[in-house]
Amino acid sequence: MKMPGTLTGVGIGPGDPELITLKAIRVIKAADAVAYFAKAGNESHARTIVAAHLRPGVAELPLLYPVTIEVGKDTAEYQNAIDSFFDESAVTLAQELDAGQAVAVVCEGDPLFYSSYMHLHVRLAERYRTEVVAGITGMSGCWSSVGTPIAQGDDVLTVLPATLPEAELARRIADTDAAVVMKMGRHLPKVRRALERAGRLKRAIYIERGTMNGAKVIPLSDKTDDVAPYFAMVLVPGWEARS
Amino acid sequence: MKMPGTLTGVGIGPGDPELITLKAIRVIKAADAVAYFAKAGNESHARTIVAAHLRPGVAELPLLYPVTIEVGKDTAEYQNAIDSFFDESAVTLAQELDAGQAVAVVCEGDPLFYSSYMHLHVRLAERYRTEVVAGITGMSGCWSSVGTPIAQGDDVLTVLPATLPEAELARRIADTDAAVVMKMGRHLPKVRRALERAGRLKRAIYIERGTMNGAKVIPLSDKTDDVAPYFAMVLVPGWEARS
Repeated sequence: MKMPGTLTGVGIGPGDPELITLKAIRVIKAADAVAYFAKAGNESHARTIVAAHLRPGVAELPLLYPVTIEVGKDTAEYQNAIDSFFDESAVTLAQELDAGQAVAVVCEGDPLFYSSYMHLHVRLAERYRTEVVAGITGMSGCWSSVGTPIAQGDDVLTVLPATLPEAELARRIADTDAAVVMKMGRHLPKVRRALERAGRLKRAIYIERGTMNGAKVIPLSDKTDDVAPYFAMVLVPGWEARS
Repeated sequence: MKMPGTLTGVGIGPGDPELITLKAIRVIKAADAVAYFAKAGNESHARTIVAAHLRPGVAELPLLYPVTIEVGKDTAEYQNAIDSFFDESAVTLAQELDAGQAVAVVCEGDPLFYSSYMHLHVRLAERYRTEVVAGITGMSGCWSSVGTPIAQGDDVLTVLPATLPEAELARRIADTDAAVVMKMGRHLPKVRRALERAGRLKRAIYIERGTMNGAKVIPLSDKTDDVAPYFAMVLVPGWEARS
């Protein structure tokens, strides 16, 4: 019987293929199989980022989300579909691991920071040897591309999913030095109102496509429409709030 | 007259020399001068991390802190000394930039996330062309080496300097899903009390030397002494708090 393989969650950074680490490249090149999440019918961003480092002939395991935002995420339908998807994905990876394969799951950003990889990790980490390679988060990529110091000294930094209710967003933004609001999409008008209520709209910076080609960076108060992709984010720098 | 050079803040990650990005390596190899912070009399951790990538003969600009923790940081003496130090360091870099040199400041972690680099950036960014290369933060390195999912879905993550007052730490830890408490040092007993008051002590993980040799990871409640280095941190995972 074979020794089970190792599962490695590999952070590959926020989008710019140069923001990948030496460790991520080593693990990807050594893997027997490389898995990545994607929306059915779309190319996987993660695969695109690591394409140059894939060993010729390496097994690829695309994990295709059955639903993303077509179904409201608070519905039982969404929860059931997404839970079954993660269960099935874990079974797919377990088969490879049982066969002794080294499996690398390549993840945009950092694998343990709001990433789908965690859903595999919690399903497999008790049975298999796992490792995690830290990656540069989308938020680090964003504040670096803007050149805006985000937090310093005694600053408190709060990371907020835009999915939270408006009153909670406003309360938390008013109660922190620096804030990052992620997962924007259709929540942008609500986030704008929350920033206004918290008195922080003037400081807020809107960023789309972070470190990638076609990146867009503007003061949120200059953005005249309410259209935002899911991965857009808003930064409220802490450092500036003190000056 | 020469064209002024470019200042680049280069994130080099949390300590493991493999957690450096391709972009950081490219910028370091291309630099005319490489600057780094260090405590007088000590080797610079940042320099150690990038040693393998320094071009032979590259100019090195060590920036030596005049004070670190010998003087209380809330004293005027500390503030004056540290402000003068950053002013003088900026002058040193400005001379290189005026001579047309490409200057890379290598920074542990991420340059715009609680890093000394920011003090140079704000002094020079209006006069010189600047770029920032995102780096893996110490906190990403820590939760990855532990293999602990830190935040997921609608979780709020709060990053807290351990320097804050106990009551404020307790209030903020009780009011968040996930927390990272940084800059531990002599603040550990206070942080422990704050976690206890917030009802989160049992979940807290203590990490010393993160991704480096000699890393130490234990549940904070199992740590029997109050000794912690400045860069030790405590993680309160959000994901687990929900299960």
